[in-house]
Formats: sequence, structure tokens, C-alpha cells
Amino acid sequence: MAVNKQWIYARKPAAEVGPDNFDLRESAMPEPKAGEVLVRTTLLSLDPASRAWMQGATYRSQLNPGDVMAGWGLGEVVSSCAKGFEPGDLVSGEYGWQQYAAFPARGLTRHDKKHKPEHILGVLGITGLTAYFGMLDVGRPRPGETVLVSGAAGAVGSIAGQIAKISGCHVTGTTRGKDKCKWLVEELGFDAAIDYTAENLDKALKDACPNGLDVYFDNTGGDVLAAALRRMNVFGRVSCCGAISQYNTSKPEPGPFGVPGFIVTKRIRMEGFVVMDFYNRKAQAEAALARWLDEGKLKAPVDVVDGFERMPSALAGMFAGKNKGKLMVRV
Amino acid sequence: MAVNKQWIYARKPAAEVGPDNFDLRESAMPEPKAGEVLVRTTLLSLDPASRAWMQGATYRSQLNPGDVMAGWGLGEVVSSCAKGFEPGDLVSGEYGWQQYAAFPARGLTRHDKKHKPEHILGVLGITGLTAYFGMLDVGRPRPGETVLVSGAAGAVGSIAGQIAKISGCHVTGTTRGKDKCKWLVEELGFDAAIDYTAENLDKALKDACPNGLDVYFDNTGGDVLAAALRRMNVFGRVSCCGAISQYNTSKPEPGPFGVPGFIVTKRIRMEGFVVMDFYNRKAQAEAALARWLDEGKLKAPVDVVDGFERMPSALAGMFAGKNKGKLMVRV
Repeated sequence: MAVNKQWIYARKPAAEVGPDNFDLRESAMPEPKAGEVLVRTTLLSLDPASRAWMQGATYRSQLNPGDVMAGWGLGEVVSSCAKGFEPGDLVSGEYGWQQYAAFPARGLTRHDKKHKPEHILGVLGITGLTAYFGMLDVGRPRPGETVLVSGAAGAVGSIAGQIAKISGCHVTGTTRGKDKCKWLVEELGFDAAIDYTAENLDKALKDACPNGLDVYFDNTGGDVLAAALRRMNVFGRVSCCGAISQYNTSKPEPGPFGVPGFIVTKRIRMEGFVVMDFYNRKAQAEAALARWLDEGKLKAPVDVVDGFERMPSALAGMFAGKNKGKLMVRV
Repeated sequence: MAVNKQWIYARKPAAEVGPDNFDLRESAMPEPKAGEVLVRTTLLSLDPASRAWMQGATYRSQLNPGDVMAGWGLGEVVSSCAKGFEPGDLVSGEYGWQQYAAFPARGLTRHDKKHKPEHILGVLGITGLTAYFGMLDVGRPRPGETVLVSGAAGAVGSIAGQIAKISGCHVTGTTRGKDKCKWLVEELGFDAAIDYTAENLDKALKDACPNGLDVYFDNTGGDVLAAALRRMNVFGRVSCCGAISQYNTSKPEPGPFGVPGFIVTKRIRMEGFVVMDFYNRKAQAEAALARWLDEGKLKAPVDVVDGFERMPSALAGMFAGKNKGKLMVRV
């Protein structure tokens, strides 16, 4: 009998997420019903928001122990009970951490095979779209302005910073460790990078951004957000994409000093977004990202871990800041 | 010899501002130079931001001990060395806490005498303009939406809440004490009022705003801001007007929990403003406010204290929540 391996979200983390919170289960191969498609997973995406889903309701309902762990995947259609999908089609969807999924066709997207699978699940997927809309539509950088991106070596941050460069801005990234700082500047073309674990943030920001900050793309919250608010220029914008510094805990910290004080005196606009809010313009963003990739203006770094068994440890590694670019697991 | 009484900002407050921080000085009557006007003060405005000016740079440079205390006043022109100003003209300007000021004409505004002096310095001046632009341009309430205003019995809050009512919204205000709650509902037409010193904010907000919050007009920061973020609907707006809960101290608290978490998941826009940013549309706002006053749709409550000597105690009383509506001193 064919077996479907699934990672089950088994136990709520008290603080940091790790392999203890998951169980590997062997289930029967699922059978697609009418309107569904059987997908064999080839790549699974790992995302910081996963930790938040375990903690409570976010922009989606909370995950509960016993559920198949949620997440986006890319795979091949094995069999189809839905119009418009054929065996061999390349599809993506949010069907969770499992080797096979019988999934409603309306929740799947078909993809052109001319792009690399890693790009489909990364820069041309939710990751790249998040960076595109969060930077351009929420942050709204103008040529010559100064932009800061936190979590800059991560999946979204690495693309968001490059989009700000393409927009003609001076771009600084924050990340963990000298190695990733060097990589941001030398490989991705950032103007400067700050190791937030080693440097005095206020001093480093002053040195890297002598003209102050006009746009801050926030993936982290916490200390970097607080320092960015201090350094921000009048009419600055904070594009609130995520808060990885506050996800991996059951006891989030209070907000940064200067909220709402700096927001008033500097007339700052701080605005949150979720990528799906912009899906009416998805095609526009995908086309722009694909063109920048083709033209060599945008690099799409990926960090691929081999082996479905390593999903939980790869997730823990992401919170330890181990990945460069988009982290995914080849199943 | 004619004497000019002035209140000097003498000593920086360690925490709460009060009469100890000011000295009354008798100076020689000032003489206007070319381009200046001699004004005799009749009414002086008291504003929460005064305390912030003593603490550090805000949207204006910091006040320093020894300066005449800053503030807006209304007065009559005594003599003029500037074109366009005549003795007897009614003028307003930010010339500080003094009985007479020799002030550059370009910093003064001439007023039509058809309006009451208290209205010119209040609802038709900076107070009303702040409420108008902060509510309509930053908060952007739509008919049928739910709006919360903090500091609702204060100068700006009392007008902001009424503008939201005029806009067809369900409006709740927070203030201190049962008496002011009753006044907000019975006199100003708020739908509900919450005594933040006596009630459980989360429960009271849930009861008063069963459909959640769409717009929060924030005059206070602190606990009310934190509770508003918890109660806010997806795509909610926070119009950051001021943070009186954090002014009267030299040690502001950290920001509210949920920044940036709620901002991301609920796609909240939190935006600060300063009324001067909207001065290109000042005439539009003044005309609307005057029309609503004339039509009886807007009440402009004023709390007038008699006597220039009482300026410092009146300021302290404002932070103790004693005033209803716009606080000013008749000189």
C-alpha cells in the first residue's frame, strides 16, 4: 500500500519552535474527490509566519495540534478529478507539509515550466510578491531616498532590498553575522549592511544612513523597528511585513518606544499588509519580477535543504538565522 | 512706565508640569520694529503639546529655560509698523504667554470679528483644524463605520468625535470620570463614552463597539491605544494626533503590545500628522467648521479660566483632566 508521509503539528511550543513540536505520521495515500487533484510534493516552502500560526489567529485561523502542518508547496499532478488539471501539470498551493495531497483545484495555481521550480515557489511566488507590494505599494520609495530593510538576508528581505535598489534608492539591510552582511553588499548589491547582533544599532544606522531613513521595510519588529523610528525622517513610511523577532515566543515584548510619539512628531505612516490584499494586481507584479530576473537586475537566492524528514529542523534553523535567501525543502 | 507681564519657562519638569516650572516676570513694554505689530493679548490657549515642547524637540524646536513660555494667543493690535495691520485689528499668533507682544506681522493672522473670540482661538483655529484634518484626511471614516476618540472631552477630541458623527459614524469617546462621560453623550451627541480610569477597557470597548473599530483618533497613546489595537477591524486606521499620556513625564513608557504584530495581521494604517501639513486646505476646513457651527451641527465647548496669573495652574489642571472642551485663559 502506498504511504503518505505527513508532518503533524503535534504540540504547541512554549517558546522556540523545534522538532519536538512535530510528529512524522504515515497515512494512507489520499484519493481525490470530485473537484480535487492529487498532487505529489516536490518542494516545500518554509516561512517565518508558520510560528505565528501556531500561536494564535493571524490573517488565517490558528493551527491546532493534530493538524497537518500548514505551508506552501510545489508539486506535480498525479491524477485529477478537476477540469483544467492534467497529470504532469506543475502546481502550487497551501496544502501543508505532506508528500501527497488531495486538494481542491480552486486552491491550486498552475505554473509554466519555463521558470525554475525554486523561483516559482520563491521570487515569483508569495515571497517575491510580498516584497514587491510591500516595498512599492506600502513603502513607496522615491529615487534618491534612503531605505532600510530588516531580515535583509531572508526570503522577502533579500528581494525587497533589491527592489528598492532597482527603484534608485540607497539601501541598507540588517541581518545576523558578518558573513551575511558581506553577502548582502557583495552579492546582492546593498549599499550597506548592519549586523544587529554585534553593532550599536543607532550608531550603525547613523553611519550607514547619513541622510536619515525615508522607508523602513520591517520584517522583524523589536529593536530594529525601535531604532528605525528614531532615525526616520519626517513623512517616513514603515511597511510592516512581519515581526519575526516576536514570533518565536509565547510572550511577545511591548511595542517600541516612540509609538505613538515619533509617529506624531515625524508624521510617520506605519502600515501593515498581507500579500493577498494585492492579488488583483498579481499578474503585474509577476511580470515585473520575471523581467528583472531575466535582465539580471534581480538575484533570487535560494537555500534548499534536501529531505522531507528535515522540515522541522530546517524551520528551527530559519529562526536561528541560518538561511540566506528563500529557505525550502526538496521532498 | 507701562509693564508687560510674562510667564517664563524657568525650570524643566522632572515629571508633572506645574506652577513650580514657571516664573512671572515684569518686563518693559516691547516696541514694535519695522514689519512688527504690538499686540495686547486678550485670550491665551492652553495645549497638551506644551509639555512635550519642554521635554525635547518635536515638530518645533525644544523650549529652553529662560524662554517666554510658548503658546497661541488672540489679541488686539495696539500699534503697527507693518502694512495691512491697523490698531483695533483682531489677530492671533504663537507669541507666547505674555500680556503684550511685539511680533512679526507675517506670523499673525487677522480675523473677522463676526465670530466669538473663543471660537477663533478654538474650533475655528488650530484645535478645530486639527480635529478636521486628523479625522477626515487621516482617519477617513466612512458612513456606518465605528470610530473611537480618546481624550474625547478635550479640545481636539470633542470636535473630532462630533465630526465623525456628522460623517455618519457610530462614535465612542474615552475620558476620565462619570461626569465627563455623561456630558459627551448628552451634550455632544456621542453614542457612548468610557471612563478609562474606572472601567475594564477591553470589556467596555466590546460593549460600546460591538462591530469592532474602524477608526481610532488617538490623543493619548498608552493603554487606550493598546486596547484600540486589540479591538480594531481589518484595514482599520489609527490617526495619531497626540500622546498626552506620555507627555507629562520625562520617562515615556514603551509602545503598546501588538506593534507591529496587529498592524501586520489586521493591515492597520497608523499615521501621524501635524495640522500645519494641511494648511494648503485651511480655508476649506475653516469654512466647513463655521458652517457646522452656524447650522448647530457642531458644538464648540470652551472652558475659560479668568486671569493671566493662573496660566501655570490651568496647564496643570488640563493634565489632571479638569477641563471640558477647549481650555483657555482670559487675560
